[in-house]
Order: sequence, then structure tokens, then C-alpha cells
Amino acid sequence: MFITKRTFRFHLSEYRERLYHTKKKMQDKGMDVLLITDPANMNYLTGYDAWTFYVGQIVVVSVDEEEPMWIGRDQDANGAHITAWMNEKNIIPCPEEYYHSDQKHPMDFFAKLVHLMGKSNRTIGVEMDMYYFTAATYEALKRALPSAKLRNANALVNWVRLVKSDQEIAYMRMAATLAENAMSVGIEKIEADVRENDVIAEVYHELIAGTDAFGGDYPAVAPLIPSGDDTSSLHVSWSDRKFHANDFAILKLSGCSARYHAPLSRTIAIGETPEKIKEAGKHCVEGLHAALDTVKPGVTCEEIEYAWRQTAEKHGVLKDTFLGYSIGSNYPPDWGSHTANLRQGDRTVLQPNMTFHMIPRLWIDGSGIEVSETFQVTETGCETLTDFERRLFVK
Amino acid sequence: MFITKRTFRFHLSEYRERLYHTKKKMQDKGMDVLLITDPANMNYLTGYDAWTFYVGQIVVVSVDEEEPMWIGRDQDANGAHITAWMNEKNIIPCPEEYYHSDQKHPMDFFAKLVHLMGKSNRTIGVEMDMYYFTAATYEALKRALPSAKLRNANALVNWVRLVKSDQEIAYMRMAATLAENAMSVGIEKIEADVRENDVIAEVYHELIAGTDAFGGDYPAVAPLIPSGDDTSSLHVSWSDRKFHANDFAILKLSGCSARYHAPLSRTIAIGETPEKIKEAGKHCVEGLHAALDTVKPGVTCEEIEYAWRQTAEKHGVLKDTFLGYSIGSNYPPDWGSHTANLRQGDRTVLQPNMTFHMIPRLWIDGSGIEVSETFQVTETGCETLTDFERRLFVK
Repeated sequence: MFITKRTFRFHLSEYRERLYHTKKKMQDKGMDVLLITDPANMNYLTGYDAWTFYVGQIVVVSVDEEEPMWIGRDQDANGAHITAWMNEKNIIPCPEEYYHSDQKHPMDFFAKLVHLMGKSNRTIGVEMDMYYFTAATYEALKRALPSAKLRNANALVNWVRLVKSDQEIAYMRMAATLAENAMSVGIEKIEADVRENDVIAEVYHELIAGTDAFGGDYPAVAPLIPSGDDTSSLHVSWSDRKFHANDFAILKLSGCSARYHAPLSRTIAIGETPEKIKEAGKHCVEGLHAALDTVKPGVTCEEIEYAWRQTAEKHGVLKDTFLGYSIGSNYPPDWGSHTANLRQGDRTVLQPNMTFHMIPRLWIDGSGIEVSETFQVTETGCETLTDFERRLFVK
Repeated sequence: MFITKRTFRFHLSEYRERLYHTKKKMQDKGMDVLLITDPANMNYLTGYDAWTFYVGQIVVVSVDEEEPMWIGRDQDANGAHITAWMNEKNIIPCPEEYYHSDQKHPMDFFAKLVHLMGKSNRTIGVEMDMYYFTAATYEALKRALPSAKLRNANALVNWVRLVKSDQEIAYMRMAATLAENAMSVGIEKIEADVRENDVIAEVYHELIAGTDAFGGDYPAVAPLIPSGDDTSSLHVSWSDRKFHANDFAILKLSGCSARYHAPLSRTIAIGETPEKIKEAGKHCVEGLHAALDTVKPGVTCEEIEYAWRQTAEKHGVLKDTFLGYSIGSNYPPDWGSHTANLRQGDRTVLQPNMTFHMIPRLWIDGSGIEVSETFQVTETGCETLTDFERRLFVK
């Protein structure tokens, strides 16, 4: 069977540039080989894109090999042929017997290939704290390659991904459009006696149907819409309860285009709104603006958070000092990039084309109020990718 | 702030029974303490349900403690108060400084609590090959509790979950209804010149809007709808390409209710269908029936697969011997239960109220044809939970 590759989402030259920067970082850290299990990092370097991260799969980058190598489950190898840019000899199917087995582990097979490549005694980087690099995976690797020098390469590629290319920003703008449209639909639909799930159904429809020009991909995190007591917690899922009059809800969602995200959250009051909630909404927006005004190349992440805190802490309780995080491409279970964070102690210096989700939150009587934006650092300041009215919505 | 617990999805007695069986298995294996990181296992034992599995969190079960203990991120602890049944003293917030930090790991904090409980030199089971038990988590645990005897307790709770209670089956039936409705809507919508994402948007809407009686939760895997070359691979995601006339697509989806799944897949031909695809569709259904007819208590998993293979292998290529898997409650990235599988070599003996997703697949010229069902083992045979016409659909 002849398989046609999908149109790549980026020019080949961009994939090669990413690879170049990754190898450079590897060399800086004295690593010869990098075993990548983070699906967003796999996608970044190879273009590979499929819902297969629930089983063992890996991308191998060697400083002295021109192309990366994809190794994954036999039934998924055609997906690599379809979506990844490499020569087909660099796409290796791992036999079914290694999966869901008590006797064998996919890493046994991956390690065998590293050995065949003559690299079993090299310095090998692994993503130690990545979801899909389990303790058993690490133990299997140590067992199979006892002479290898294993090093922690956690988030190494994530840091390469920090500054976005113009094409990446273009996908994030598409994701932002999806997010705005879904937010409109969600706010329109929320009211007393409507079930939470009915709002989310509309939101999901909008996120994926997209526009006439482009459709949406699945976001790495499901939309959330806590209301009532649930706003005391950030990540409780929707149910089929109905919204109550005189309550408020927080709708948090992200569009997704080519795996790139642009999250957005707004707080919506239903009916009569207590004055202090309205006030908190205003102060949240004020703090958001104060923080956005601080953003420009050369400023550090913690300075942004400081601007927010100074404005906000006179108006409500700040539970923590985590104002946001670097955002871009990702897969479930998280859309955050696990690199630079807008918080106290993070001295990452902003550069043009870094992108963040800034999510200011005030706590009033134990409930959270949020108004967030996804923004891009520009040459002179910042530009929000999402463009949606910044206020507390009252239905 | 006073937080109201949500109505529990199961009687307290059921949670206690689950705990009893878990402790019994722990004792059989000589384990004093079990550290659970699988969100479906956490949910099964405590009721805890939130999209927080992307950060460090844990449930601690001790053979000599009456209740389990939930430990997770400070901002998520209220979610445990809302959804988990335990006494509030058994819900412990882990400070923000342990998260997204180079210096500290959430497991440092969890291990500290195990130490405080006086259990740092006990035999402690950990889920070695679970997504959310990373290599770094394991290393942190070993560092923090050097006197503990660590044992592999991978899938220990998954095996306790194998036989479902009537209430669990009831949730799976609700999930099955959602799956059937979404499949109807999807098949209705698929045709030439319609974009893949527009079909998925309708499917998602149906899965979550649900019925007047109940809404749907997010499925652990996004719906898939490969068509054309993509059917050569099982898990490539949708895009905004249009379906082609005279092509075929495989729609695979699951409803989700209270985190319980009932997956369903059907193959849909668009327009003129080559005779051999029609034939393959028939043979897939024939093989499905042959396999379902074999199901009853006392039969082993591999015998079911054998019945399928005998019927099917004369009609097409069988790429592997994996016919299905135990199914129930789960979270992203997988809806499968990682225990009993319908495949060669699996001698698990069927018992009433085990549930499986049986997914027969024939390969024709490198493309896959599927017709699947979710079924429950009954006292005398089996009953499919999903009830949807078993045939190749032609649009």
C-alpha cells in the first residue's frame, strides 16, 4: 500500500532548525543521544501527530545522525509515515508483543535499537519527569543499557520550544479565534436552569467545527466550567447540574490548531451579582492590564507577576504567586509548556515571540474569579492573541 | 467557606468494599502501604474526580488505616473535599512551591507524610508503569524513604476493578446510550465534501449534551475518524480535510458517564463501495458474532479471540491477535483498563459483570475495517451494552 504523507504543518527547514537547536542543547549538556517521550516534543521535532501517547513510543535524536528516528507500536507506524517528515527507514514499528505484556516492555525494544545503532555506551538524555516516561520505562532502560550514562534531559526540548516561529504564532492565532468563538457561544448559553454539560456541548462544538477557513483540533485539556462551590477548586469537571440564579461560573477553555493552544477564561455572573464579586471582576481586569503593561523583551517573568500582585493584593486574597505559564503546542493531559512561569522566583528573560497564558485570579470568600489572556511578547511590548471583552459578564 | 460535597456516585458501602478488596490484595502481596497515582484508581477508591492528573497527586492506602488519604496540589484540595468521601482530615493540600519547581518535587512532600505516618520503613507498593508515576517521581520517593521496601503494585487496583458492580454497569449503560446517539449523529453527518472536523463537532456535542435524563462527561480518548490513507493507521486524528466520494471512514468514539466508558466503532463507506470492502464489512460482523457467541463465564479471554480468528482469517489479513480489552472507568490518555485482554496468551477466566470492548478489525489492502461492541459478561453468556446496527454503513 502506498501511503501519502499529509501536508506538513511547517517547512522542512523549520523542522531542521528545531533539530539543530536541540542538538546544540544536547552538546552543551554533553549528551550524545536523546530519548524523547513527550508527545509535544516528538511532534515538534518530527511532525508526528496521533493519539498514541497512551502506549510506549519514542523519538531518538542523536547528535551525529541527520534525522530523528520514530519507534512506536506496529499498528501506529503508518501514522508516522503519514505525519512525520523523516525518511521511511527512520520509522520503526515495535512488535505488538511488547505492549500490555507482563514479560516485555516497549523500552526493551527501543533500547535494543539504540544498541544496534552502536550507542549503548553513550551519554543518553531522558525526560525524567515526563508523564509518558514511567518508572518502569526507566528501569527497563537501565536494565537494557547498563553501560549507558543516563542523564536528566527533562524539558530540554520544551525550552527549545520557548520562542515561537511566525508559523507557530499563526497557528496560535487560529487557536485564539476558536477560543473567542467558543467563549461567545458559552457565555451566550449560560443561564439559570441550564445544565453545565449543555453549555460545554456547545463550547466543544464551536472549538472543533471552527470557521469556514479552518477547523479545530482536540484541546489538551477539556473545557472547565465550575460554578457555585466548585469555583473554590480550579479543576473540578462539569456535571449535568443546572446553574443557579445569583451564582457565578468560570468558563476556561482553549482553541487548538495543529496542536497549538490559546487558552482563555472569563467569569460569568448569573442574575443578581453581589457587589463584591463585581468589584473583584473589575480588580482582576485592572491587575491583568497592569501585568500586560509590564510585558516587553528584557523583563523577567517574576516582574510580570509582581506587577499583578501589587495591583491585586489590596483587593482580594491571592492564594499563590502563579500568574501564568508558557503556552504553545501540547497533548493531554496538559496544555502548559512546563518551562517559563509567570511567578515569583522565575527569572526567565522575555524575548519576542514567547507566548504565555496569563491567568489572574482573585479569591473572594473562598471562590475564585478569573479573567485570562494568551499573549505574545512583541519587539516593544505584547499583543494578546485572544481578543475578547475583559470584564465580568452578567447574564 | 463551607463546601458542600457533591452527591456521591456510589454508596459509601461500595467504596468501603472496594477498599476492602484492595487491602486484601495488598496483604496477599505483603504490602503495608499503597501509593496510587492512576487517576481512575484514585477515583475508584475515593470518588475524587477532577482534571488535576497533570500535576503530582496521590492516594495513600494503608492496610491498617480505615480511610485512604488524598494528597494533591493546594489549589485542588477543595475539589477533593467536594468529590471524595473521606473525612476532611484525610485530604491534605501540598504547597504550591512543590509544583513546576527544579528544586522540589511533589513526591518529596508525599513521602514526608508517609514518614510522619510512621510508615517510612514499611513495604510500599507503587504503580511502576502508570503514566503519572514518572521516573523522577520514583527517584524522589527512593531518596526520601531510603528504608522503605518498594514493590511493584502496577495495575493492582485495576485488577480489583475488573468485575463491575451493578451501579458501575448502570453508568456504562448510560455511556453506551451516549455512544449510540453520537454514532447515529456521526453517520448521519458523514458524506463526501463534508469536513472531518464538522462530523466530530456534532459527535462531541451529542456525547456531552447527552439526553434529557443525563449529560455526558469527557471521554478519556477523543473520537477518531480516519478515512482514506489514515485508515492504515488506527489513531491519526481528524483534520479539516473533506471526505472523498468512494472512500470509507472508521468512526470510533465512546460515551462517558461518571468516568465510565462504552466505546463503539463502525465503518462507513461513502458512495460507491468496492465489493471487497462490503465483503470485509460482512466478515467483520460475522467474526464479531462468532466471538460474542463464545462469551460466557468460565471461558478464557484467549478463547474468545480464537473464535474471532478462526472465522475471520480466511477473509482478510489479521495484523495482530489483539481483539479487545477490559473497559470501565478511566481518564485521559486511555479508556482501556490495562488488565484482561482478548488476545492469544491471556488466560483470564471470564466472570459475570466483567466488561470488554471487542474491536474486530480486518485489513484490506492495508486499510482497516472495524465493527466493535462493548459487552458485559452475564450469568449465561453476554449482553452488548451498546446496541447499534452491526453492518458496514453506506452513505
